[in-house]
Amino acid sequence: MKTLPAKTVERLSEYRRTLMECLKENKNYIFSHNLAARLHITAVQVRRDLMLIGYTSVLRKGYDVKVLIETISRIIDSEQGMNVAIIGIGNLGRALAAYFKGKRSKLNLIASFDNDPQKINKVISGVKCYPYHDLEKTIKELDIEVAILTVPADFAREIAEETVRYGIKGILNFTTVPLNVPSGVYLEEYDMITSIEKVAYFVKENKL
Amino acid sequence: MKTLPAKTVERLSEYRRTLMECLKENKNYIFSHNLAARLHITAVQVRRDLMLIGYTSVLRKGYDVKVLIETISRIIDSEQGMNVAIIGIGNLGRALAAYFKGKRSKLNLIASFDNDPQKINKVISGVKCYPYHDLEKTIKELDIEVAILTVPADFAREIAEETVRYGIKGILNFTTVPLNVPSGVYLEEYDMITSIEKVAYFVKENKL
Repeated sequence: MKTLPAKTVERLSEYRRTLMECLKENKNYIFSHNLAARLHITAVQVRRDLMLIGYTSVLRKGYDVKVLIETISRIIDSEQGMNVAIIGIGNLGRALAAYFKGKRSKLNLIASFDNDPQKINKVISGVKCYPYHDLEKTIKELDIEVAILTVPADFAREIAEETVRYGIKGILNFTTVPLNVPSGVYLEEYDMITSIEKVAYFVKENKL
Repeated sequence: MKTLPAKTVERLSEYRRTLMECLKENKNYIFSHNLAARLHITAVQVRRDLMLIGYTSVLRKGYDVKVLIETISRIIDSEQGMNVAIIGIGNLGRALAAYFKGKRSKLNLIASFDNDPQKINKVISGVKCYPYHDLEKTIKELDIEVAILTVPADFAREIAEETVRYGIKGILNFTTVPLNVPSGVYLEEYDMITSIEKVAYFVKENKL
């Protein structure tokens, strides 16, 4: 199968999250329009995405929730799992660790890094914290492929470059500093201020 | 001017952030392709967005950075400013407050809310914390229009409904619970797990 567009992967992830909620509510079947409504998108979009991953077994009572979760997982997860580290375990790093830890079976949050002696070698939000000077050794020994970057802005570029040098293949950047990565490394950046500015803009426009 | 598409607003916010960095580096002019390169998009996209907001004054030496910042600000900011509150001041709330406080002149992070007696009436990450039972009074007195939601998942729906009832017009939802808001209220949701899954997917695909 061809690599999917980024937006499709995002939606597949959201479908799975929503389907997992359905299971918790003991809903075993769901129609495309119900799945769509929960995510504020159209049923056409849902059906198009699922066709793209070859899922067509629509039943009279809707999609089989468990089967659809498995299908999506087979597409977006890495079969043997993938190890993730949080780099910089301040307030944001801790919040992300607590939120993420144990939520996805194929993504193992296996380490965090910091330079604060109070944190090093402690288990914080369920994850062991390693010192920056062991970045190379730890990334290699623990086979870490994805880094969540939550360091102070001043260190962002330097630390990102180091992680890539030591073998990191994907970075989720939460710092305010836009990064450049070599080809072969996937970079996803999130700037919270952009989200807030977007909300503020539409609040303003709705008032006009 | 017509309300802009959400994606354009996002990019305008990113252009402004990048232009503000240029000023810090004493760069007073920038070409569209340089601005584009910093954001990993095309120059055509930059020029199209700026034409959409009526900005055409391209000089031989590129865009005038200060003028472009002012133009974007006039479009996306609310002239009289807008008050913002963080609801739930745990690790994530504190991280967002520290990150956001004072970063944008037209968005005033004016309050936080929590139910922990240790936090109430204290100033945390530069913002005064109010109790949930004063939500209505405080939202109205301080004229808060935007809420950043960082409460535990179990409270998300209930608190979101309350804030809307008391006059909140825009919500940025960082909880794992998808929300429904009445029309006239703008909702933006961010799910970190989707971002990580996206990174992991492309790391996996790059290895194939």
